[in-house]
Amino acid sequence: MAKGIFITFEGIEGSGKTTQGKLLFESLKKQGYDVVYTYEPGDTEAGKHIRELLLNSEIKITPLCELLLYFADRAQHIEEKIKPYLEVGFTVICDRFTDSTIVYQGYARGISIDLIQNLNRELFNDFMPDLTVLLDCPVEIGLGRNRKINKKDKFEIENFSFHEKVRNGYLELAKRSQERFFVLDATEPTEIVAEKIYKKVISIIESL
Amino acid sequence: MAKGIFITFEGIEGSGKTTQGKLLFESLKKQGYDVVYTYEPGDTEAGKHIRELLLNSEIKITPLCELLLYFADRAQHIEEKIKPYLEVGFTVICDRFTDSTIVYQGYARGISIDLIQNLNRELFNDFMPDLTVLLDCPVEIGLGRNRKINKKDKFEIENFSFHEKVRNGYLELAKRSQERFFVLDATEPTEIVAEKIYKKVISIIESL
Repeated sequence: MAKGIFITFEGIEGSGKTTQGKLLFESLKKQGYDVVYTYEPGDTEAGKHIRELLLNSEIKITPLCELLLYFADRAQHIEEKIKPYLEVGFTVICDRFTDSTIVYQGYARGISIDLIQNLNRELFNDFMPDLTVLLDCPVEIGLGRNRKINKKDKFEIENFSFHEKVRNGYLELAKRSQERFFVLDATEPTEIVAEKIYKKVISIIESL
Repeated sequence: MAKGIFITFEGIEGSGKTTQGKLLFESLKKQGYDVVYTYEPGDTEAGKHIRELLLNSEIKITPLCELLLYFADRAQHIEEKIKPYLEVGFTVICDRFTDSTIVYQGYARGISIDLIQNLNRELFNDFMPDLTVLLDCPVEIGLGRNRKINKKDKFEIENFSFHEKVRNGYLELAKRSQERFFVLDATEPTEIVAEKIYKKVISIIESL
C-alpha cells in the first residue's frame, strides 16, 4: 500500500491556515481521495488536556515547559494519528506542526533553534512534512482578522513584535527548505489561494 | 549567600519516600534550617495539570508523550521552585526527580536510557541532586503497603514485573553513582531509617 502524503499548514494568527486546510480537505474528499484533517496542539485525547494548559493565559509556564508540552502533544499525535493514517495511504492535512515550534518557541520566544532541532531529531528522527503550505501575510492584517472574530488565547495577546518575529521566522525557514515549502500571499482572495494550493497538491499526488 | 543542598528521595511505590522526605523536612525545620519540601510530578500550578494527565489511567498516553510530560513538569519545577530556593541557601527536599524518569520510563517502560540522559543534558545541563536517598525494599512489601491504604493511580496498577524493573533500575543507578546515592533498607523501622537519613544530611551540611 502506498504511503500517504503529509501536508502541513503554517502561518501567523489570522493568516487563514485553518480555512485553507479545511478547504483542501473538502476538495480532496470530493475528488474521492482518502484524506484526514488534523491540527496541533490538541487533536488527541491527551492532546486536548495539553492544549488547554498551553493556551491558558492564567497559568504561568516557562518557555522550556511550554516547548516540552508542544513536543509531548506532538509525540502523541504522530503515533496515535498521523503515522497510522499515512501508513494506510491517507493524505494527512495538519494545521501547525514542527515549524510552528521553531518559529514560536525559537524565533519568537528565544529558545535555541539548535535545541529544538536536536529534540526533533532525537525524539522523532527528524520526521517532517512532505509539503508545507505557508500562508504569509503582514502581521497587521492577520491580527486584524482575528480581532474581528474576537479570538483571544495566549498567543493572540502577545504584542506586535512577537508576531513579526513569527512571520520573519517562517520566511527564513521557507528560504532554507525551499523544496518543502509552498509560500503563498495570504492577502489574496480565499478562493484564489485555495485553487493554488489544490493544484499544487494534485500535482504532487499525480507525480507519485 | 551559600547555595543550598538539593536532596531527592527515590524508591518504588510504597517504599516510604514521602514519609521519610517529610520526616527529614520536619527534623531540619525544628533545628532551624531553611528547608523546603517539594515533589514531582505536580508541585507547581502548571505541574498540577500535568500530573492529573499523567496519573489518569483512562487517558491513552504513549511512552514518549509520558516522558515529555515528565520533562515539561520538571522544567517548570526547576525554574519556578527548586533553583530559586537553592539560590537563597535553602535545603530542597524533593520526592522523585530525574532518577524516577530513568527507571520508570527507561528501565521499566523501555525508552532508551541514552535518550533520557541526552534530554537531561540538553534541557537541564545535567542538573542533578547533591544527595539521593534511595529507599530500597522488595516489590511485594512496597506494593503491600500501598494496597493497605488503597492507593491506585496509573503506576499502582502496573504489574509486579514492572515494579521489579523499577527496583532493579534504581539499584543499578545507585551502583553507577555511588558518590551521590545513599541506599537504605526500607524494611527497617521508620524511625531507624529516619535517624540514618538525618545523620547523613547533617554530616553533609556540616562539611560545607
